[in-house]
Amino acid sequence: MARAPRRRRLVLPLLCLLFQGATALLFAVFVRYNHETDAALWHRDNLSNVDNEFYFRYPSFQDVHVMIFVGFGFLMVFLHRYGFSSVGFTFLVATFTIQWATLVQGFLHSFHGGHIHVGIESLINADFCTGAVLISFGAVLGKTGPAQLLLMALWEAVLFSVNEFILLSLLGVRDAGGSMTIHTFGAYFGLFLSRVLYRSQLEKSRQRQSSVYHSDLFAMIGTIFLWVFWPSFNSAPTALGDGQHRTALNTYYSLTASTLSTFALSALVSGDGRLDMIHVQNAALAGGVVVGTASEMMLTPFGALAAGFLAGTVSTLGYKFFTPVLESRFKVQDTCGVHNLHGVPGLLGAILGVLVAALATHEAYGDGLQDVFPLVANGQRSATSQAVYQLFGMFVTLVFASVGGSLGVGLLLRLPFLDSPPDSQCFEDQIYWEVPGEQEPEAQGPLRAEETDT
Amino acid sequence: MARAPRRRRLVLPLLCLLFQGATALLFAVFVRYNHETDAALWHRDNLSNVDNEFYFRYPSFQDVHVMIFVGFGFLMVFLHRYGFSSVGFTFLVATFTIQWATLVQGFLHSFHGGHIHVGIESLINADFCTGAVLISFGAVLGKTGPAQLLLMALWEAVLFSVNEFILLSLLGVRDAGGSMTIHTFGAYFGLFLSRVLYRSQLEKSRQRQSSVYHSDLFAMIGTIFLWVFWPSFNSAPTALGDGQHRTALNTYYSLTASTLSTFALSALVSGDGRLDMIHVQNAALAGGVVVGTASEMMLTPFGALAAGFLAGTVSTLGYKFFTPVLESRFKVQDTCGVHNLHGVPGLLGAILGVLVAALATHEAYGDGLQDVFPLVANGQRSATSQAVYQLFGMFVTLVFASVGGSLGVGLLLRLPFLDSPPDSQCFEDQIYWEVPGEQEPEAQGPLRAEETDT
Amino acid sequence: MARAPRRRRLVLPLLCLLFQGATALLFAVFVRYNHETDAALWHRDNLSNVDNEFYFRYPSFQDVHVMIFVGFGFLMVFLHRYGFSSVGFTFLVATFTIQWATLVQGFLHSFHGGHIHVGIESLINADFCTGAVLISFGAVLGKTGPAQLLLMALWEAVLFSVNEFILLSLLGVRDAGGSMTIHTFGAYFGLFLSRVLYRSQLEKSRQRQSSVYHSDLFAMIGTIFLWVFWPSFNSAPTALGDGQHRTALNTYYSLTASTLSTFALSALVSGDGRLDMIHVQNAALAGGVVVGTASEMMLTPFGALAAGFLAGTVSTLGYKFFTPVLESRFKVQDTCGVHNLHGVPGLLGAILGVLVAALATHEAYGDGLQDVFPLVANGQRSATSQAVYQLFGMFVTLVFASVGGSLGVGLLLRLPFLDSPPDSQCFEDQIYWEVPGEQEPEAQGPLRAEETDT
Repeated sequence: MARAPRRRRLVLPLLCLLFQGATALLFAVFVRYNHETDAALWHRDNLSNVDNEFYFRYPSFQDVHVMIFVGFGFLMVFLHRYGFSSVGFTFLVATFTIQWATLVQGFLHSFHGGHIHVGIESLINADFCTGAVLISFGAVLGKTGPAQLLLMALWEAVLFSVNEFILLSLLGVRDAGGSMTIHTFGAYFGLFLSRVLYRSQLEKSRQRQSSVYHSDLFAMIGTIFLWVFWPSFNSAPTALGDGQHRTALNTYYSLTASTLSTFALSALVSGDGRLDMIHVQNAALAGGVVVGTASEMMLTPFGALAAGFLAGTVSTLGYKFFTPVLESRFKVQDTCGVHNLHGVPGLLGAILGVLVAALATHEAYGDGLQDVFPLVANGQRSATSQAVYQLFGMFVTLVFASVGGSLGVGLLLRLPFLDSPPDSQCFEDQIYWEVPGEQEPEAQGPLRAEETDT
Repeated sequence: MARAPRRRRLVLPLLCLLFQGATALLFAVFVRYNHETDAALWHRDNLSNVDNEFYFRYPSFQDVHVMIFVGFGFLMVFLHRYGFSSVGFTFLVATFTIQWATLVQGFLHSFHGGHIHVGIESLINADFCTGAVLISFGAVLGKTGPAQLLLMALWEAVLFSVNEFILLSLLGVRDAGGSMTIHTFGAYFGLFLSRVLYRSQLEKSRQRQSSVYHSDLFAMIGTIFLWVFWPSFNSAPTALGDGQHRTALNTYYSLTASTLSTFALSALVSGDGRLDMIHVQNAALAGGVVVGTASEMMLTPFGALAAGFLAGTVSTLGYKFFTPVLESRFKVQDTCGVHNLHGVPGLLGAILGVLVAALATHEAYGDGLQDVFPLVANGQRSATSQAVYQLFGMFVTLVFASVGGSLGVGLLLRLPFLDSPPDSQCFEDQIYWEVPGEQEPEAQGPLRAEETDT
Repeated sequence: MARAPRRRRLVLPLLCLLFQGATALLFAVFVRYNHETDAALWHRDNLSNVDNEFYFRYPSFQDVHVMIFVGFGFLMVFLHRYGFSSVGFTFLVATFTIQWATLVQGFLHSFHGGHIHVGIESLINADFCTGAVLISFGAVLGKTGPAQLLLMALWEAVLFSVNEFILLSLLGVRDAGGSMTIHTFGAYFGLFLSRVLYRSQLEKSRQRQSSVYHSDLFAMIGTIFLWVFWPSFNSAPTALGDGQHRTALNTYYSLTASTLSTFALSALVSGDGRLDMIHVQNAALAGGVVVGTASEMMLTPFGALAAGFLAGTVSTLGYKFFTPVLESRFKVQDTCGVHNLHGVPGLLGAILGVLVAALATHEAYGDGLQDVFPLVANGQRSATSQAVYQLFGMFVTLVFASVGGSLGVGLLLRLPFLDSPPDSQCFEDQIYWEVPGEQEPEAQGPLRAEETDT
């Protein structure tokens, strides 16, 4: 009886200190400013130079940064007794993942001369990797402790980066907004992990797996910041100029359609025509996921609307009909429904990318073909071939996510000395946090006369 | 008894699907990327070209986007049982309006070669139209269902766009931040609509027409994001360079003055010197509205302060003294007080624009006169003439708003098969939403020993 | 008994009107648009000119603006009965300070030809001054009325500006993100003020000096927006190009480390391994404070991590162990713990600046030395000499803050006709605000059949 609290007392801080010490050491040895960030390498003349990407990318980066911390953090606050953990563990896991992803991605993408060179792109990429980890967090929300989540992030960030490197650098797959690399990967990684961590006795905590009125409003803060800034998410790493412009536009339109279809379907599938806040909080965002791959391509505004409409529809139906099946038939307990918001829309987005890539022509893209499909523009590939590579990239991602989320980290997270909550204390802040009451300590009557008048 | 729920069950989803299908079809036929968004038309060389407006306007667009969804959405959450509807219907109505406005404004402003050409300006303009629709929503908040609101948006977006086209393109009126086209139009459209939908039995729902402590805090999220980003709202469509710069500055100063005067007046007009949160949530923003027309002009920093001070004062007095009269004398039930925040400050802003335009000289504006008053710069008009046109624009707006909000849509929204709430269920989420309780299902005592230790 | 309410009724509005009138008058006489804001002085050709700083600085400005109003405002909402005052008085004090700081800073920094010339830099600088005033507000939160706070801001903004002028303009000290000028100054000004206003009977209000579950979630909105946008805060006034880029990067990394160390230490110092939300809300931000001076320098990414780690650790330990001592031994009641978040991390940041400045070489900075240490680049100073000036700047700041916060304003704020709350009514909104209840006026059961069906 005495050992468990001591374990919990020490595992998390020791892991934090160990991880921080290790990344700091690796930063000291390997990480350097890149040529736009280093005072000695950069020149003021560069400001008028289009090579200076900082000013073109920084506003989008900040939007993405808000999405990661405010968006994901508050989206998961919907559980009525898990708000501290949702926003707090998002904070913890994201900050570690950012440091760790900077290293892993740096070794794969910007390692030369013995050093990793960091700049604004590093920040965007690290935030993207963090997005995938937080998607996985959504699948296991309430059933894992912070130390478990840090171990998950340690492993997932490596797999994420390797998968991303294989797709983008080796296979020449296009996936700017990460339908595959971020959403599909993060969702299935989390779902397979949730399968390994299946709790047959989760009923004991079921009364806490629901929202209250104001926790749903807090969650809408997350939803709306994600929704509003998603055009920046998909466009943050695209080619400057028309690429970023078009990506932002497509994402904007797609999201409007997924929101309309979410409202339509939510009312349709309920028994009495009432809307379900869970659908609005989540499925409305599927339009951003589904154009993660294709929004930089010549999708057309109509294509964006159609894709968003499909994603919102499928996602809402998933929340209504498939989430229960996922638990009862497949033993996957998906707390936030990431399968519906990121998994299926991510796969649809990958397939949409296959289709749009197959239709790419020199007429449709002009000089811009070099930016969107450089291997096609250079004659190294046909559009059909590019489409096949896109499809292959989706399967590679599924393999990485499923194997990584089950075999690898699943077993690790079952180690007994970690801080997994007991079945009866899932979705409960008190096990990890000092929690104040919800009510004021004293009843608040009107002020007494002598107090207001003195 | 069985028919009403079925009606409610089908009207909203059918309307969503119908509207989405129609706009998608129109998008397929008419909407194309503009020359900065199309891969085949844009060239990387453009990045160093000042014609590439995307990078100069995108940050402001994102600020406006936050204002529309976070700002308006949460500002209306102040009602204690209407938070889901406030933020949810904002989401629904805004997403439809964006699509629809893109089409209507596109036909009026960027239709050539048989196509509407969309780019970053389309997004800003669609968000602006949405702002007007959401202002009208504020007037009828709690008394209209989502299907009614979609019909309102359908009609209002058309009138908004036609009025905007008449003012800006035909009359050569200047109204960057929309004191007339957005605020005056949206407010009086909503108020006339509210008059047509007058409910003599609204007393039955009066106990729900109030805030609770935390709903007022949620509303402040909306207020502050509106307040903070308003400089971007007014400057988003202005001329690049000094125009955007000056507009942002003027709006910033005006808002500080309206906030100070709101606090002063709120304390002055209350019986006991206590501040009223309704004033702070709303009247503090009037400084942004009042310089919507004039902030791109040479208003001077002092002029901005004076205008903001006046607007905050008038708005606070309006909330205190005029809103009750509006209901008792004019039978206009104005839930959010849009008359005080958008109506009167919008009219004051229009008049301020008349005055500042009348004072425009070649000395004061130099080469910049071309950007702010091109017809005056070209010698087609005198400054006085421009001022008269500005004034005429205000009256045109009032005619469009009043006739459009009463005759047109007012009757449509009274159609019996729509989802208007009964008098006793206004300001109530439960009629449209699955609503969880406010309290946790179980009392949360301290954890029992066996739970924390296992 | 009758006099007190009347005093409260009139002091605040009269002060608002007086201050607004005075600043408006001074604006009319002295404030003019600068050459980038004035239509007559600016030319469209400037858009391609790097001298046009508006587009490079506006996105960062908006991020800072969000931090001031959303960040500070909501961070202080953690008290369960002081949410209206926290967010409301932030709003009031900030808007006055912005106007007033524009004047005072303008006289010191951009006064020529008899006029103050304002532009985007004025907005950033005014927001920075406001940041310092709000830090001081955090120390006296709940124990001062709005009229007292306005007087505090009047005095503090002058001292802030003079201190800033001495450091940056006379001593040639570098302090872009304000470790000294903003955080150290604001914190110690507030702490000395809190000492002068010491209340021996504060126990009478102690039951209100705590959070409830949802007030802690509201506070996390403030925390996360501060955390996310802090890279923009530190980089807003730095040299364009590599300077802004590097500053943003260093701040980003430093914050990740302070967050990890905060979680580690929070769990370590608690008795049972549970995390404390107060630490997460505050100490996680110390990484932004500690690199306020050094983040524009060649701190290296590792240096940023190390600094952030140190700051998060020291700050968390401060909340746990030093805040109680501060009250019991030093009679300083520090409501928000600004000593731990801004005071000590600010001093550490100043010392870090001393160290990094001492190590500056021509090799490490290349041409960039001109931007970061112009006096060293010009040969007017050695790096060691610059370091000594940095250290001297820290002491100057401490003198201004301590003398200013105690002698000057402390006595002024004790004037009897001000609106200081009685000891038994500290941390209580009702004394200044019309406050609705927390519970809905009616119990919300399921809708009755006749209501849903009609």
